[in-house]
Amino acid sequence: MPAHQEWVENNNQYAATFGEKGALPLAPAKKLAIVTCMDARINVYAELGINEGDSHIIRNAGGCAKDALRSIIISQRLLGTREIAVFHHTDCGMLTFNTPQLRKLVKDSDPSNPALNAVDEIDFLEFNQLEQSVKDDVTYLKENPLVLAETTVTGWVYEVGTGKVRSFLRFSFSFISNFVAWSISNLFFIDPSGGINWDSGYAFLYHQSKLLA
Amino acid sequence: MPAHQEWVENNNQYAATFGEKGALPLAPAKKLAIVTCMDARINVYAELGINEGDSHIIRNAGGCAKDALRSIIISQRLLGTREIAVFHHTDCGMLTFNTPQLRKLVKDSDPSNPALNAVDEIDFLEFNQLEQSVKDDVTYLKENPLVLAETTVTGWVYEVGTGKVRSFLRFSFSFISNFVAWSISNLFFIDPSGGINWDSGYAFLYHQSKLLA
Repeated sequence: MPAHQEWVENNNQYAATFGEKGALPLAPAKKLAIVTCMDARINVYAELGINEGDSHIIRNAGGCAKDALRSIIISQRLLGTREIAVFHHTDCGMLTFNTPQLRKLVKDSDPSNPALNAVDEIDFLEFNQLEQSVKDDVTYLKENPLVLAETTVTGWVYEVGTGKVRSFLRFSFSFISNFVAWSISNLFFIDPSGGINWDSGYAFLYHQSKLLA
Repeated sequence: MPAHQEWVENNNQYAATFGEKGALPLAPAKKLAIVTCMDARINVYAELGINEGDSHIIRNAGGCAKDALRSIIISQRLLGTREIAVFHHTDCGMLTFNTPQLRKLVKDSDPSNPALNAVDEIDFLEFNQLEQSVKDDVTYLKENPLVLAETTVTGWVYEVGTGKVRSFLRFSFSFISNFVAWSISNLFFIDPSGGINWDSGYAFLYHQSKLLA
């Protein structure tokens, strides 16, 4: 049975208890945009305990910030979001291939079809190290002139084997508020282990020094 | 309080009952990719009754298929999906502006910053008619040589005011199976009103005649 045949019945149940959600406004209540992977194991609402109306959710292969830029500009400039959280995850498909391999796979699937050469125009944005990929995407967003300078950007990893999230990057718009927020985050609530993540401290300070330079 | 400060506590609860989900494989069980909007009011899992592991979820401003192509190629070629469902929704922000307006808004926000001219490289992929935008995206996917020809593509609208979904486009890879599926869909289960959607029939036949030509 095609996957979507169950949806209408399920949807009738959802709509039957829709209640006040029908009056939610277009702009996200928490002024937040979450960027994460399309991976089937990621249930953003459940894993973070967010609700309808809270946050834009942008999802693509890998949770790549570059691929999300069009959406982020719309989210910020037209719908008022001022915080971005980037989530990548363990066991991600983006860690398993590279762009030349995938281009070849597509073209080799039908060598007689020149239309498949269009794949050579696509950068698949794979990465080969999970934590570094989050750092790179947070840096990309903080340094991109089309992203508002006052944006708070946080970087996270979701563990598909445990259901847990962990944060290791937090950049906001000023050094002092950022340092305080980072310190509090690491000491009290962000790091699920309860400890200080020195790697994030290093990345934080390195990045801030670049911003201040 | 920044939006993400609640997440760790919520996430601890989610992880505490994670159970068998930790053993889910990378490839989606239902061989399905859903493309939908980033809109904060859309809770894909709840509205369709799907579960972790079922489907890739690709979300961007508008639920635009063109913006999802990189992800779809990865989803199909590396992770085995063979069905795509495109959802757009009522009251979408993409209906409220156009690309020249948004480019101007960004550049006017700081005329002294030439880096903002980079926005001129971005097509924001807005649309001005909801149902037509779904048809256009379904056609785009069916006609794109980089999308596997055997893909079943369905088009849907989600109503943010009621929580209901409705389907009006269903294209799969052969004329006969497609016609049977479309007929059954419209008569028995896909159209929540229970009636035949003649517009979808027209679009279906028009499209099939193009495929057969």
